[in-house]
Formats: sequence, structure tokens, C-alpha cells
Amino acid sequence: MLAELSVFPLDKGGKGLSHYVAGAIEIIEESGLDYEVHAMGTLIEGPGDKVFEVIRKCHENMAAECNRVVTNVKIDDHKGVTGTLKAKVASVGQKLGHTVQKACG
Amino acid sequence: MLAELSVFPLDKGGKGLSHYVAGAIEIIEESGLDYEVHAMGTLIEGPGDKVFEVIRKCHENMAAECNRVVTNVKIDDHKGVTGTLKAKVASVGQKLGHTVQKACG
Amino acid sequence: MLAELSVFPLDKGGKGLSHYVAGAIEIIEESGLDYEVHAMGTLIEGPGDKVFEVIRKCHENMAAECNRVVTNVKIDDHKGVTGTLKAKVASVGQKLGHTVQKACG
Amino acid sequence: MLAELSVFPLDKGGKGLSHYVAGAIEIIEESGLDYEVHAMGTLIEGPGDKVFEVIRKCHENMAAECNRVVTNVKIDDHKGVTGTLKAKVASVGQKLGHTVQKACG
Repeated sequence: MLAELSVFPLDKGGKGLSHYVAGAIEIIEESGLDYEVHAMGTLIEGPGDKVFEVIRKCHENMAAECNRVVTNVKIDDHKGVTGTLKAKVASVGQKLGHTVQKACG
Repeated sequence: MLAELSVFPLDKGGKGLSHYVAGAIEIIEESGLDYEVHAMGTLIEGPGDKVFEVIRKCHENMAAECNRVVTNVKIDDHKGVTGTLKAKVASVGQKLGHTVQKACG
Repeated sequence: MLAELSVFPLDKGGKGLSHYVAGAIEIIEESGLDYEVHAMGTLIEGPGDKVFEVIRKCHENMAAECNRVVTNVKIDDHKGVTGTLKAKVASVGQKLGHTVQKACG
Repeated sequence: MLAELSVFPLDKGGKGLSHYVAGAIEIIEESGLDYEVHAMGTLIEGPGDKVFEVIRKCHENMAAECNRVVTNVKIDDHKGVTGTLKAKVASVGQKLGHTVQKACG
């Protein structure tokens, strides 16, 4: 299962949010699941139950620290398909005939 | 303005979607705006009017080819703040004290 | 916690999706949580752990029936605030000085 | 085209947001398009170009008043299909064999 997660506090005036986001990334890192961070969220890939668990943990962890938390989750659950974190972008590049610009910091 | 766009056809049986996605990436590339492709969407950064225009174009282009199209847009519009495509991920890494895993294919 | 859930199959050609969506609504109904169905998703309100559980169940149920499932979740978790399913729309109406058009079928 | 829009300020401490949301609803009302407000967003139905225009206007209007604005858009563009604001919920109810609970304030 491939999921995209974004979690952020709504009660912090929209400043210094990376401190809170870092807490979520830490939880994802500790989960041992494959992941990739981009500027508007984090992709997580793995067995459905583990992905759901880490998403819930990230949300609850931020909700414990903050008064109002907004969480967005997008899931693409394609039976029997794994390794899509890399494969999807490569497949688009193949169609275009050139490598696409990726989130490489 | 920083935006995340995902556009995909709902009437193609969920297979071979990268062909359609590639059409959207091509439009984004041609726009000249900063962008990054990841496995569940594309980040686009630039002046608000240009970003809205390219989003609309990507949707309309796919809707011309497909019978049913789902488009998701997430915008983070932070006044006077630019270059966030790279800066946001770097800022989270700084909080964590180590570089985060990015979408690097 | 207030959440919005949308779950749909990507492998059914974009037709007759209401059959699958109905399965998700049934799970939500059986949960006993407050909910409201609209044309692009369902709002669910209740304790965080119960809401997360019902979201996971809806997704897993459809994933058992379908080859590819897309799930979108949006959460607004405002500490100590309940009853927002009705209160939020009423509050916007108050600001406007007139009742707003609601999703009333 | 059926779209769901949510626009909110991130720099207001997560309180009193309905004032800002009301501004967006006003723009949607003035557009003359079909719409429905629910607790986490507004559904808008109409010709694609008009829907895109009203979405952009809602975002720009709030961005003029606020320092940081988050906008979420979800589009379901089904060729030749109109009146889905009501029809989709009715169709799910038909599958379930009973009327579903709608967003009726």
C-alpha cells in the first residue's frame, strides 16, 4: 500500500511548523517502512495495517502537543503491487522519454 | 505559491495510468515553473496565477482524453515565501539533526 | 475529531461506483458514530480512535472486493471541540447573516 | 464538473476561521453555480471553466486577507454527467435500500 501523509498544527500561527512535522517524520523513520519526504507531505509504503498504524500514531502524537491538528491522507492500494515509491516516477519518465525532475533536495 | 497536483483517469481500469500522467507532467515542464514529481503527485512552485493556470490546463488536457478524471490540488500559499520546494524538507532535516530520505528515484 | 472520508475503486472503469461506496456507508452507519454523506465523501465525527478504526475498516473492506482502491482522508482534530458537524456550517451562516445552502438531497 | 473546495487561513491560530470561510462562501454564492456547504468544505457543480474560476477567486480573496492560506480542491469530472450534487447521494441510498443521513444542519 502506498500512502501520502501530511500532518500540521492549525493553532501555531503558521510559523515554525517544521518542528512539529519533524516529530511525525521521526515516527515514520522508526516504523521501518519505506518513505520519502517532500515539501508538502511524506510518502509511506508497506503493508496496509502497518501504514495505517503509523499514520494514526503521527496524528495522535501531534494532537497530544497541539490544540488543533489537520491531517491529510491519500492512499493508493493496488493489490499485489509493491515498490511503487520508485517505480511510478520511473514509469512516467519512460513515457516522456526522459528522466523527470524528482524531489532530491 | 506552492501547490501539489495529482490528476488521473477513473475510467481506465486503474492500469497504464502513467501514460496519462506523463501528459500532465509535460504541461508542467513546458510551463517553466519549478516542479518535482513524486509517486503520488507533482509539486509546483511559482506565482499564484501561473500555478492555477497550469493546474487547470493539466486537468482539461486529461479530461479531453478521458471520460472521467479525478484531480486533487493542495495549496500552501505563504505570503512572501519562495523556494520552499527545497527549503521545507531541509528545515525538517535540521530539526531532526540528520538529512531526511527524499524522493530521489 | 471530525474527519472526511472518500473511498472508491480505481479498477471499475469509473461506472457503478455507488455499489462500492454503499458498502463503506454501511460500515460507518454500523459504527454508531455521527456522520453525514455528501456527493464527494462522508463526514464522520467522534473519538479519534473510533474514527480511525472505521476509516481503516472502510478501506480494507473495499480493498478486499477491488483490485485498486483510492482513499482520501481529511482530519480536523480540535481539542475539546465536539458537535462540529452542525456547528461549523451554522457558524458560517451566522457570519453571512443568512442560512447557507446545505447538502440536503 | 463536480468539485469540493476547502480554503482556510493557517496564520490565525485556528480560531474564528468561520469569518474567513464565510468570505469564500459569499464568492461561491455570487457565482450562481450550484453548491452545498458542509462542515469541512463546499461542493460546487457547473461548467469546468466557471468552477475553476470561482476556486481561484476564493483562494486569492483569502490570500489577500491572510498571510498563509491552505486550499484543498478535489475534482470529479465525469463527461456528460450533471446534477450529481443530489444524484450521487441518492444512488448510494438506493443501493443501501434506505435514505442516507445527509448534511442538513
